[in-house]
Amino acid sequence: MLKYLKLSALLYSFVLYFIVIMPCRAQTKDSLMLRKITNDILLHGKCYPWLGSMCRTIGPRLSGSPQAAAAVEYVYQIMKTLHLDTVYKQECMVPHWVRGEKESAKILTTNAGEFPASICALGGSVSTPAEGITAKVVEIDSWEELKKMGGEGRIKGKIVFYNRPFDETIIQTFAAYSKAVDQRYNGPSEAARYGAIATIVRSMTNRLDDNPHTGNMGYNDSIAKVPCCAISTMGAEQLSGLLKIDTGLRFYFKMSCETLPDEKSYNVVGEIKGTEHPEQIIVIGGHLDSWDLAQGANDDGSGVMQSLEVLRVFKSLGIHPKRTIRVVAFMNEENGGRGGSKYAELAKLHHENTIAAIESDAGGFSPRGFGITGTTKKREEIERWKNLLFQYGLYDFGGEGGGSDIDPLKVQGVTLIGLTPDSQRYFDIHHSALDTFDNVNKRELELGAASLAMLAYLISLYGL
Amino acid sequence: MLKYLKLSALLYSFVLYFIVIMPCRAQTKDSLMLRKITNDILLHGKCYPWLGSMCRTIGPRLSGSPQAAAAVEYVYQIMKTLHLDTVYKQECMVPHWVRGEKESAKILTTNAGEFPASICALGGSVSTPAEGITAKVVEIDSWEELKKMGGEGRIKGKIVFYNRPFDETIIQTFAAYSKAVDQRYNGPSEAARYGAIATIVRSMTNRLDDNPHTGNMGYNDSIAKVPCCAISTMGAEQLSGLLKIDTGLRFYFKMSCETLPDEKSYNVVGEIKGTEHPEQIIVIGGHLDSWDLAQGANDDGSGVMQSLEVLRVFKSLGIHPKRTIRVVAFMNEENGGRGGSKYAELAKLHHENTIAAIESDAGGFSPRGFGITGTTKKREEIERWKNLLFQYGLYDFGGEGGGSDIDPLKVQGVTLIGLTPDSQRYFDIHHSALDTFDNVNKRELELGAASLAMLAYLISLYGL
Repeated sequence: MLKYLKLSALLYSFVLYFIVIMPCRAQTKDSLMLRKITNDILLHGKCYPWLGSMCRTIGPRLSGSPQAAAAVEYVYQIMKTLHLDTVYKQECMVPHWVRGEKESAKILTTNAGEFPASICALGGSVSTPAEGITAKVVEIDSWEELKKMGGEGRIKGKIVFYNRPFDETIIQTFAAYSKAVDQRYNGPSEAARYGAIATIVRSMTNRLDDNPHTGNMGYNDSIAKVPCCAISTMGAEQLSGLLKIDTGLRFYFKMSCETLPDEKSYNVVGEIKGTEHPEQIIVIGGHLDSWDLAQGANDDGSGVMQSLEVLRVFKSLGIHPKRTIRVVAFMNEENGGRGGSKYAELAKLHHENTIAAIESDAGGFSPRGFGITGTTKKREEIERWKNLLFQYGLYDFGGEGGGSDIDPLKVQGVTLIGLTPDSQRYFDIHHSALDTFDNVNKRELELGAASLAMLAYLISLYGL
Repeated sequence: MLKYLKLSALLYSFVLYFIVIMPCRAQTKDSLMLRKITNDILLHGKCYPWLGSMCRTIGPRLSGSPQAAAAVEYVYQIMKTLHLDTVYKQECMVPHWVRGEKESAKILTTNAGEFPASICALGGSVSTPAEGITAKVVEIDSWEELKKMGGEGRIKGKIVFYNRPFDETIIQTFAAYSKAVDQRYNGPSEAARYGAIATIVRSMTNRLDDNPHTGNMGYNDSIAKVPCCAISTMGAEQLSGLLKIDTGLRFYFKMSCETLPDEKSYNVVGEIKGTEHPEQIIVIGGHLDSWDLAQGANDDGSGVMQSLEVLRVFKSLGIHPKRTIRVVAFMNEENGGRGGSKYAELAKLHHENTIAAIESDAGGFSPRGFGITGTTKKREEIERWKNLLFQYGLYDFGGEGGGSDIDPLKVQGVTLIGLTPDSQRYFDIHHSALDTFDNVNKRELELGAASLAMLAYLISLYGL
């Protein structure tokens, strides 16, 4: 009996230690380290001044521009100051589209005079003729409508105006964007298929104001390339309203954008080698290029600087990660994705073992969680850490996630993770003149950086 | 056997229906109604234009001012348009403090000239003499330090400068505010106790800029009343830095604020009577008064307009709540709380059965959940609805909650609930010139209103 009791006590102790105490101790230790990481970023973080400096001294940095080259150098130099194990540039060729002179546009009514309209060329668009384009306008709210009107010959020689707005009832604004952006990307060629001579698209935003929002579009090479622009939401409302009462209305616009030969550019890479499993790589990144209408503060200067902050805080706290932390400032996310493709291509070539790739490209707003694209097992492994992360406002691990720059790694079986900040303000400023540094909140940016750093820490410790 | 099987099947059906199907059906029905409520607010909400109009046409509305009276009338008229069962004003006397002329202040160094300083009087402060106050400054970072220096006679005749900043490492900024605001509220009398002739307090914000943040203070009637002001955080950093190198430094400031006799004012009340339990009242509110340095857009125009939105959406969707929904726009939260006290006093006098009071007074930012002050049972009843609310970004039901206006109802056993929006940006603008309409995001404001409306709907249906 005594022996039985002893065995039982032993068993009890065993269970207590390995099932209860040890995990608790690990959680407590991890919890303390996550707190240290976050405190260090909130007290001594550099992402905010780094971003401010890039926004003010470099500004817009579309692929192929001198500013994009300056941004590569800027980030490279920051990495150099961080005493990393490796810092290098990864060459890639990128498209070089330029806007040219500021666009001009007018709504020409038959008997109420002219109204100026606030437009911008879509990235990749061809220019109008030097004298501009003037034509009647057909408003289109669905692909079915386009097909029907095209079939009836009512598109030919006209300007097609895509005016399907964001669905306001969708809580997560990225989902609303996804449901509307087909108009911007595919609209020009789809309209040209029926003889349209140009297209206008309602800006991709929930917000009603007079800022046009640019963004990439793609021509179908087998169809004539027509000039395409975005109009501000207020302009879209006005144009739509006037069209209802003035069937003779015409629209005039002039753009001098063009696509120049590809330019050489770079991803910028900096890493801290893992102490136990250096071959297991955790990629963290954002993209360095931005649209040309503003400073690209939230899209995606914030993601780049948050990623650099991860490196800074690891070095500052003397954390020697078991697995390699590699930060990549990707080039050319906005109009080509060449940086992301090149990175994935080289990772494959070198048979790299990327255990996770984390991207921050949804703005520097208050973080709410992570989207995960990977196996159920990987998702469960990440969700183990939910209770450690909850106190930092990170609660949402439900959706899919990743980012354009890391998506090419998916076919290599890499678990993709995207930081999910609050989405309500993102499309107010996205790809417009409003994407400036003053629309970034210091603490929100830092809390996003802390989220990346905490997750990177946990993956570097436990693997994935 | 057959009989047994039949009974078993009956039992099974019973269990299936009452334990599984019925609650599921209720949840589905509720879920659909919550979606209708939210969609209606996101598509047809009025809180944003209502708030914009109040901010632009009325502006700052400190208790006792003509603007506060105009705001009472503005909200009363909005309620009148909503076809409610009852709309009335509830009289209360309020303090009437006025700032007078814009304050002026300078840092006077011994050998580096003068620096202008950005200050504002704290609400309730006495004025300086007409020629201002000029004196040496003692920086104080803790009450222990004050006591020690006071005991040594080093406070007498000086200006005490409270410079304990927000603790940046606290994630929820309201907690950081709570830990710092004792300096603003108690600082003047505590310093005067040791012979100080005036006080300066570092503005209550995480943000480093040149906007001073006002706020209420309270004199101890047994101690001499000394003039007290807040200095911008940048000014505080400068003053602190200069004090370290210039022991002869003096500070000059001039204020002409004064407290006038109490004025008559009002809470504004509008309600939809419950169809089954009209005597069970759900109070929803925010406060109508605001500090005088800006438009009081987030503090707390947003809370008032979100509360009105609840009434609008119930009427718009033809919801006849089983229990009474009563919206209160409280007066005088900022410097006296007289409206909240009067409301509670009358509720007690009339033996009202308030089953819950919900306040929105933490800014019109993206909602994250509700804080709850009540019994464990009440908390559990509210937490039943978590899975219905999660998709709207409401996940945090953990903390205590309420609000200054509804807190006086606590002693009557009322369950107090406070809307918890994201807190990162609130103290950037709180009580300063930055609390303007352009710092309110339309969708964030509407989602907060939808949160109030959804919770009010569930409580009106199921009780609490």
